[in-house]
Amino acid sequence: MIKLYYAAHTCSLASHIALEDAAAVRISFAADEQRKPEYLAINPKARAPALVTDKGVLTETPAILAFIAQSFPKARLAPLDDRFLFAQVQAFNSYLCSTLHVAHAHRMRGNRWADDPAAIEAMQRKVPDSMAACYQLIEEKMLGEPWVMGETYTICDPYLFTMAQWMEQDGVDASRSPKVRDHRHRMAERPQVRKAIAEELA
Amino acid sequence: MIKLYYAAHTCSLASHIALEDAAAVRISFAADEQRKPEYLAINPKARAPALVTDKGVLTETPAILAFIAQSFPKARLAPLDDRFLFAQVQAFNSYLCSTLHVAHAHRMRGNRWADDPAAIEAMQRKVPDSMAACYQLIEEKMLGEPWVMGETYTICDPYLFTMAQWMEQDGVDASRSPKVRDHRHRMAERPQVRKAIAEELA
Repeated sequence: MIKLYYAAHTCSLASHIALEDAAAVRISFAADEQRKPEYLAINPKARAPALVTDKGVLTETPAILAFIAQSFPKARLAPLDDRFLFAQVQAFNSYLCSTLHVAHAHRMRGNRWADDPAAIEAMQRKVPDSMAACYQLIEEKMLGEPWVMGETYTICDPYLFTMAQWMEQDGVDASRSPKVRDHRHRMAERPQVRKAIAEELA
Repeated sequence: MIKLYYAAHTCSLASHIALEDAAAVRISFAADEQRKPEYLAINPKARAPALVTDKGVLTETPAILAFIAQSFPKARLAPLDDRFLFAQVQAFNSYLCSTLHVAHAHRMRGNRWADDPAAIEAMQRKVPDSMAACYQLIEEKMLGEPWVMGETYTICDPYLFTMAQWMEQDGVDASRSPKVRDHRHRMAERPQVRKAIAEELA
């Protein structure tokens, strides 16, 4: 049994898509009231996603994605037999988690890092620049074709797609990152991605 | 061949300790001029750590730590045979990378997320609170004894130790997190930790 708790419009979508990629796994919809006692009992971080398994709860997108890949090896969602390639997958996802997503979060979640409203506005103003710098690095140094790691689709792809969906809201000119833009279109055509998004918006 | 590029007083220490834990691997000292062309050719992110291997360069602490564990399985630095436990290790490290380290970075690296000096000062003012909240969660919900994962030492331990060394500078009252404080003392007594620190400060 695996049950993913997610909230629409969050980075949970990456794990949701990966589960669709991996297998026909039943997924429960989550209320997005992340601070209710019932949810805090599952994830005291009060964040989505949380993956409930027979052995316990997992949090943090990079960890969940690697776990999904290891749990469904036939889906070949990560190069599990090559520790260097696996580490490259992990490095990409860690960058999304700790740099790209963090830069993005300064647009809507500035109160995590400052209390002064003027400071929170100053953070919001910088988001287009900091995000553009992230996407430039991804475009020029990190991104393969047609998939993030090159020929083979991996758990990096749903994660990048999830973040890249927010480009316009983050004030990033997608035309300056044509490889990212094309990757996003390629992902949007995958049936698993359509299914995950449809479920989240239902 | 594995060569770790690190800078003193950064999160590189976690990977450095893990390498000491894993095996007697020769490590080169790095200049901390992260923006020199020679270093950017290794790591275009202009950050430390970067791990150079025969197959290529790895970045991002969680990815490097998992790679070290997988490269030196005899050192038993991660539960490699249990994907759920491995995911728990990864989730812990991902939290340190994307939440704890990010909160910390708002003290010295606020210019990543805002340009206004007053906003950067507002970020600095919040660091003690945001870091204390992180350490409270770690203390109450995430930390085993004597090691992060309980009985067994893993790649979570050098990473937490590396971050926890900064508690005082971050304005956190270590006495309110006695388990973290005790873990830090336990780590500081390990010969591998002493050796890594001595090398970094030499």
